[in-house]
Amino acid sequence: MDLKTYLKEQCIRVDAALDRFLPKESELPHSLHKAMRYSVFAGGKRVRPILMLAACQAVGGDTERAIPAACAMEMIHTYSLIHDDLPAMDDDDFRRGNPTSHKVFGEAIAILAGDALLTEAFKLISDPRFAVDCPAAARLAVIHEIATCAGSYGMVGGQVVDMESEGKSDIDLPVVQYIHAHKTGALIKASVVAGALLGGADAEKLAAVKRYGEAAGLAFQIADDILDIEGTTEEIGKDAGSDEARGKATYPAVIGLAAAKEEAQAMMDEAFRALEIFGPEADYLREIALYIVKRKN
Amino acid sequence: MDLKTYLKEQCIRVDAALDRFLPKESELPHSLHKAMRYSVFAGGKRVRPILMLAACQAVGGDTERAIPAACAMEMIHTYSLIHDDLPAMDDDDFRRGNPTSHKVFGEAIAILAGDALLTEAFKLISDPRFAVDCPAAARLAVIHEIATCAGSYGMVGGQVVDMESEGKSDIDLPVVQYIHAHKTGALIKASVVAGALLGGADAEKLAAVKRYGEAAGLAFQIADDILDIEGTTEEIGKDAGSDEARGKATYPAVIGLAAAKEEAQAMMDEAFRALEIFGPEADYLREIALYIVKRKN
Repeated sequence: MDLKTYLKEQCIRVDAALDRFLPKESELPHSLHKAMRYSVFAGGKRVRPILMLAACQAVGGDTERAIPAACAMEMIHTYSLIHDDLPAMDDDDFRRGNPTSHKVFGEAIAILAGDALLTEAFKLISDPRFAVDCPAAARLAVIHEIATCAGSYGMVGGQVVDMESEGKSDIDLPVVQYIHAHKTGALIKASVVAGALLGGADAEKLAAVKRYGEAAGLAFQIADDILDIEGTTEEIGKDAGSDEARGKATYPAVIGLAAAKEEAQAMMDEAFRALEIFGPEADYLREIALYIVKRKN
Repeated sequence: MDLKTYLKEQCIRVDAALDRFLPKESELPHSLHKAMRYSVFAGGKRVRPILMLAACQAVGGDTERAIPAACAMEMIHTYSLIHDDLPAMDDDDFRRGNPTSHKVFGEAIAILAGDALLTEAFKLISDPRFAVDCPAAARLAVIHEIATCAGSYGMVGGQVVDMESEGKSDIDLPVVQYIHAHKTGALIKASVVAGALLGGADAEKLAAVKRYGEAAGLAFQIADDILDIEGTTEEIGKDAGSDEARGKATYPAVIGLAAAKEEAQAMMDEAFRALEIFGPEADYLREIALYIVKRKN
C-alpha cells in the first residue's frame, strides 16, 4: 500500500474511533461536548495517532490495541491547540482555515473544552473496557510516558519557553532546540514510544523507536518552520510568514533557511538510521519520516 | 487522636509529599514551576487528599500507598481553582486571601500552570517508582476513577453548567444538584473511592465508601453555599455574599437558607449511614463529615 492510501485509511480508522470514544453532543453539558468535538474534528491529519499505530506495527504488535491510546494522543494534541490559540496565548482567530474554539464558543468554554479533552485522554487509556486486550502494566507505562511528554517537562514546558522567547532578538540555537524538542517533539516521541509499548516491544526495539521519535519530532517542527516561510496561506491554513511577523524562535530565524533545510534532512537521516534494526515492518515509519519533511501543509 | 490534630498531621504529611513530587523551581521552565508551586502551596486545607488517606485506612489499607494519588488529587483540585479564577471564568483576584495565579504570573502562565498540574497528576499516579508498593491494576482503576470524576462528566461538566446558570432567575433544584454533585462532589467522591481502591477494598466496602463520598461531597458544597452567606470575609478568605451578588446557583438561593441547612444535615446523616458496615477504623471519615458541615472556612 502506498503511503497516501495508508495515511488516508488510518485517518478514517482513527476518526471513527474518536467519534465512538468522545462524549456525544446529546449528553450534558451539550455546549462542552460540542466544543470538544468541534476542535477534534477540525481537519487534523492525525499524524500522532498514525505514528503510534505505525510504531505498534513496526515492533510486531496488534495495532487494534493501540487505538484507544492513539485517540487519547489526538485529544491531547487538540487540547494543546485550543489553549495555544487563546487570546492570552497566541490569540489566533483561525486554525486550518476554521474559526478557533474561543471564537466559536467563547473563551471560558474553550479553556474548559481543552481541560476536558486532556482529562478524557487519560480516562480513555485507563478504561476497563480495554482490560482484556491490553495488560494494565503496559497501559500504565503508556500513561506515564504520555503525561511526562505532555507536561511541564515536555509540551507545556516548550510552550512556556516559546512564549517567553517571542520577540526577543537574542535567541540562540539551544533555546530553539529546547522549544522544538519539547513543544512538538515530545508528543511525537511519546506517540511512537506508546505504540511500541502497546505492541510489546523489547528494550532494544523500544530504544530504537524512541530515537526515531526524537529525530522525526525535531524534523517535523523544523519542516513546520520552513513551511511558514515557503508555504502559501492557502496551503498551510494560516497566515504565511506569521512566525517572522511575531518574532517567533524558529530554526530559519536563528541559523538561516538553507541551514534549517539541511538540519531537517539530517534529522530525517537520523530517524532512518534508528530504524536499521527493523525490516519492512517499519516501512510506514520510514515513509512517514520522509513525508514529514516533504509535506506542503 | 482528636480530629484537629489528625487533620494537621495529615496536612503536614501531604504537604511534604507535594513538595517532594512537584517539579522544582530550579528546573526549566522556572516561571511555570514557580506558578505551579505558588498555587499548590497557597493555603489549601488538603480536604481531598486527607479524605483519600482516611478512606484507605477505613478499608484496612496502608495509607502510604495512597500518598502519590492523594497528592495528584490536590494537583487536580489546584488546577481547577487556577482555571476557575481566570478572567474568562469567575475573574477572581483573590483566593484564600492571596492574589490568584493570573494576577501574579499573567493569564498565559496561569492557564499553562493549570494544564501542567492536571498532567502532572496522571504522571504521578502512573510513576514506575511506586510499582513495588502498588499493583498496576489498582493504579489504573484509580486513574480511571479520577479522570472520570474530573472530566466532562464530572468536575469540568459541573463548572460549565454553573457558568451557564449564573445570573439566570429560573434555576431549579435539579440544576443546582447537578452543579454541586459534579463541580465539587465528583472529586470528593473520587478521593474516597481512590483511597478505598488503593487500600484493597472489596466490592461491599467500595460501594459503602462511594455512597459516603457522594453524600459528603454534596454536604460539603451546601455548607460552602451557607458559609458564603453566614461567614465573614475574613473567615472565608473571599468576599462574603459573593455568590448572591453574582447570581450563582446555590442551595440557599433555590430552597432558602433554613432548608439548605436541613439538607446539609440530611446529607451528613446519609454519609454516616453509609459507614455503618465499618467499625472505629472509619472514625476519621465520620469526623471529617461532621467537620465539613460545621467548618467556618
